[in-house]
Order: sequence, then structure tokens, then C-alpha cells
Amino acid sequence: MSKFMNYAIQLAQMVDGQTGVNPPVGSVVVKDGRIVGIGAHLRKGDKHAEVQALDMAQSEAKGATIYVSLEPCTHHGSTPPCVDKIIEAGIQKVIYAVKDTTLISKGDDILKNAGIEVEFQYNAVAAQLYQDFFTAKRNGIPELTVKVSASLDGKQATDDGESKWITNKDVKKDVYQLRHSHDAVLTGRKTIEADDPLYTTRIADGKHPIRVILSKSGKLDFGQQLFHDNASPIWIYTENKNLTVDNSNVTIIYMEQCEIKSILKDLYQKGVGKLLVEAGPEITSEFLQSDHLDHLVLYFAPKIIGGSGKYQFFQTDQIISLPDTTQFEIVNSMLIHQNIKLVLRKK
Amino acid sequence: MSKFMNYAIQLAQMVDGQTGVNPPVGSVVVKDGRIVGIGAHLRKGDKHAEVQALDMAQSEAKGATIYVSLEPCTHHGSTPPCVDKIIEAGIQKVIYAVKDTTLISKGDDILKNAGIEVEFQYNAVAAQLYQDFFTAKRNGIPELTVKVSASLDGKQATDDGESKWITNKDVKKDVYQLRHSHDAVLTGRKTIEADDPLYTTRIADGKHPIRVILSKSGKLDFGQQLFHDNASPIWIYTENKNLTVDNSNVTIIYMEQCEIKSILKDLYQKGVGKLLVEAGPEITSEFLQSDHLDHLVLYFAPKIIGGSGKYQFFQTDQIISLPDTTQFEIVNSMLIHQNIKLVLRKK
Repeated sequence: MSKFMNYAIQLAQMVDGQTGVNPPVGSVVVKDGRIVGIGAHLRKGDKHAEVQALDMAQSEAKGATIYVSLEPCTHHGSTPPCVDKIIEAGIQKVIYAVKDTTLISKGDDILKNAGIEVEFQYNAVAAQLYQDFFTAKRNGIPELTVKVSASLDGKQATDDGESKWITNKDVKKDVYQLRHSHDAVLTGRKTIEADDPLYTTRIADGKHPIRVILSKSGKLDFGQQLFHDNASPIWIYTENKNLTVDNSNVTIIYMEQCEIKSILKDLYQKGVGKLLVEAGPEITSEFLQSDHLDHLVLYFAPKIIGGSGKYQFFQTDQIISLPDTTQFEIVNSMLIHQNIKLVLRKK
Repeated sequence: MSKFMNYAIQLAQMVDGQTGVNPPVGSVVVKDGRIVGIGAHLRKGDKHAEVQALDMAQSEAKGATIYVSLEPCTHHGSTPPCVDKIIEAGIQKVIYAVKDTTLISKGDDILKNAGIEVEFQYNAVAAQLYQDFFTAKRNGIPELTVKVSASLDGKQATDDGESKWITNKDVKKDVYQLRHSHDAVLTGRKTIEADDPLYTTRIADGKHPIRVILSKSGKLDFGQQLFHDNASPIWIYTENKNLTVDNSNVTIIYMEQCEIKSILKDLYQKGVGKLLVEAGPEITSEFLQSDHLDHLVLYFAPKIIGGSGKYQFFQTDQIISLPDTTQFEIVNSMLIHQNIKLVLRKK
């Protein structure tokens, strides 16, 4: 694996979570063993990574090699196709790490016809980075991660609803990073009532996710601190036709039936490429049963809560037979100051 | 830390779980930079580690240094005091890693008065090895470990009772090791009915734990395979005065009230120094609430089961307030082929 390709992938990782429904892409232009341009796609609507890198390289791009984490695009979107720009710049060779399965025309052929050498250099890290993006784009549904903080016996709270703090402050910091890398966070009315949360990212220069509230009844208390916080927009999905609010930061989205799939499709339309669900057992259980679930991020506190399990994080009306239960692959496990973090990918 | 002390501790670890209510101890005799004797306490009633090592050293012990993982004993038990043997052998220096808080007289003073140099060389690994032993000896109650295999949402089975296999075969192998290092395994009637288990140790030359069954009603089906397996004795605790069985491998222990503390005290009296609980939610929850709980070993399978949570591994009649919940320290966490093992120590 070329170190320049690793740099391109690192650049892509840096912008992961800030490109909405577009993929995070990084690019490096190399000439005579020296980097002459670097680029990353910073935001949907902005220049693509290759264009950024070529702009930086200027005339040095002539005869150079360009490394891109993802196959260059061939379509006119909000910007012209990258393949055209690569040809114009006089690039001699293109190396990319992941084939873009959502492209209509083949970038390789266009480049080769223009006399440019093209190399597909598979990279597992990059492949993983785009796996959910491709699915999301095909389905028009955001990449979906459910986050749960629970006791070892699977409860988010005592039967009395006491939940502050199940996990510790170091976990909280990790959750800020998680929010930072998602376009939006979704929760429910009951969690807002119980915890009065802000769902912001309290890290230096962090990005605040859009706050999405699912409240079929719409019985929200607009006096809570969340509604006085303008760090990012608040979107409320409701089945309550009469719900209104006098707050320009809050948008009310009425749906006759607030089904998860409809909400996900609507969020994607609105530019949400990556959605994080941080909610109570009801909404958590609903999303965990969704066909569109990609990841579960589980924080376990080293305690056992007991009781009857009113707030077990996963409850279903139906009994699911063991072979039919949702299975995960463990992507990562780590200790965060005596709490356990598991990153799981739905199989 | 001396490498010879490390060897002594390694010897102790090798016999951990086979010394019943006695501590696992290792010893090394060193003279002129060369090991002249090694020993370990193999079984309650057998020679102590120091005596083994001195017997091996023979006349070489004269003027040598002896390393012991635990302070040498001063009492006449089933064998004479080790301090006497050390003095007789002509040892010049004794180095030990952990002070035995359960000794009545001070070994140090006896040795010093005999002109022997004594050094206490604290070792954290050894300290941890004996921590629960001291508590167990003081209370006359076995070291208590509860083992649970569960889904990520804390269930041992679906609401229908389906539980084979929550975790995978590699976990099963790890559980064999766990059984091997305990004197006895305790379970309940319902688990035997549901799983028809043997509770043996299927590893080469492994030690089978005594199988302890807690069944207040005594409504046991003696046709099940466990009762035809003579790998190790079976002890049944019951409140059923009339329970009898025509099987010399099975002992029935009647108690008017099968309370956990009484059972634990009785087991210790019978020589069980380390007890592993492998049971269903009822018995598991009872033992997890015991004051005498030392460790929880938790195996999580990467799946979520849902349902109403009939078989959550920890259920209590009372609601426990969050600050009063049982807290653990994470001693170890590891992945076993996509299952997660957590070793937790009660705080």
C-alpha cells in the first residue's frame, strides 16, 4: 500500500461526517516523489477532493500522479465531473482505492480514452469508509447508527427512570466525537423530558448535529433548554397536525404516519447523510429493528441495575427466534476509563 | 522485582483452583544464582510449597534463599509449620510477596529469631491472587464468581426460553478453563431441565468441578444425563425433606431454608474454596445480590434478543437506586472470536 494513498484516505477520514449525503473523499497529487497538492471534499456543494488538490498543484499537475480515496466522479452534480478536470490538468496517472458503485458511467474508460493510466488499488480501510455510504445513496436513506449507554444487564435506567449518570464523563466526551461525525441526532419526547439534553458537541471547534425530535403526539414542553439553544437547527417530526411553535430555529415536519422509513427518506432528502439515534428504549428498540440499521455503538457502565427491566434498551412486542435475532460484527471494542465501548456493525 | 519471585508466583498460578480452601502457593529455592528446588502446594492435605521446594533442594538448601509467593505458615494444620522446616533446612534468607493476614502468629519474628534474614517484597499480581482467599478464609465462605452468557441487551434466552447457543464454541472452551479453576459449579433445576448440561471440563487432563444443584422443590428428573455422569460428585441442596436418590455419586443435602449464605458456608466446610455459579436468571440474580460476590465473568454474544426480557440475567423485586447499584471494576476485557469476555470485580 502506497503511503500517498494512505494520506488520501487520512484526508477522507478527517472530513468524515461533514459532507452530508456526499462521500468523504481525500486526494493527493504527487510529482517526482513530492506532494504538490492535497485536497478533501469539505461540504456538499463545495469542490471535490481531486479538484481541490489539482487547484493547489496548479501547473505542477502536468505529468503528475493523483491518488484519490474513491473513484473520481463522472457526473455533473453541483460541480463538473472530476474526470474532466483530471484530463484538463494533464495528469499522467490516477490511482484510487475504492470503486464507486453508484456511478452511472465508468470513470476508468473516460480517463483511459484520454491517454491516462488508471490503477485500482484496493484498500480495506477505505472500503469500510464507503460501504454504508453506497447503501445509503442507493436507498436514499442516511447511514444509521444507534447509540446506547446501558448497564451490563442492558438497562438505560432504573425502573423509576433514574438514568443520570449511567456511564461516566469520559464516555460523554466520546459521545461528543460521535455527534461531531454525524449530520443529525434523533431522539424522542420522553428523553427530552427526562434528561433535558442539548445534543450539542462540547469539543473545541466541534460541529453540532441537527437535532431531530420524533414526537408523534407533539406534546413537547418548549420551555426546555434545548429549545432555547441555537447551536444547530431543531426538526420535529410529528403526527400532530396542530403543532406550532414560535421559534425560527425549530421546524415542524408533519407526517400522517411517523414511520421510521418515511422519516429516514425525508432526512436524506434534506441532506442528512449520517444519522445518530440517541433515545430511550422505545425509539431505540424501533430503530434497532429497522432494516436500515448500520451500526450500534454500545457503552456499558460496569454496574448491574436489576429491577423488572422497564428500561431495557431492546424490547420487542414479538418474541424473535434465536436464529432470527439481529447479529452484529464487532468492529471495535475499547475501555474508556472503566466503561466499555463496543462498535458493532449489523451483519 | 526478582525473576525468582516471578517464578514462585507463576508456580502458584499453575495450581490456582486445585487447592480447595487452601491458598495456591509457589516456591523457589536459589543458591549461588541457580535454582536448587521448586515447589507448589498441589492439594489441601499435601505438602506446602516451601516443603516441596526444600525436599527437592535437599542439602543444597543450607545457606540458600527461598522465594515464596505467600508468607510461610506458622501453624500446625494437616502439615507442620513451614517456618520450622525452613529453619531446619538451614535457609539463610526468606523472601515472600504477600503477607498472610489470616495467620495467628508472625512468621517473620520466628524466622528472625532463628537468625534468618526475612524480606517482604510486595507484588501486585500475587496480592490479587490472594485477595479473595483471605476474605473467603475470614468469612468461611468460598470465593464466589458468577458467570453469565448473554446477548448485548442482557438476556440469557428469548422469552420462549430458547438459549442454545447464545455464545459460540470458543466461549465454551473458555468456560471449560473457568470450570477447571473452580472447585465447584452451582446451578439450578431449571437450567438442568432446559439445557441438560454436564458442567464438566472438556479440556485435555482438565479437572472437573463438583456439580452443585440448588433445587428447593427437589423436583429433579434423575433421568437426565448429568445424573449418569460420574466425572465428579453431584451435591443437591434442597428444602424437600423426602428427596432421595439411588445413586452413590449424588449426595442430597437437606436444609430447612436454602439461603445462599448457609449454602456457601456449608460448601466451604466441605472444602470448596472457589465456587462458580452458572445458572439461569433466578439463581444468577440471587447470587449477584449476595454480599459475598467477588467476580462477575460476562460473555456477550454480538446479538440483540428483544422480547419482554423474561430471561434478563439480572432481575430484582426491588428497584435499586442508581447510587446503590452494584459497581464493578473491569479487571480484563477480551474478544473471543467475535464474542466479548469481561472479567469484573465487585467494588
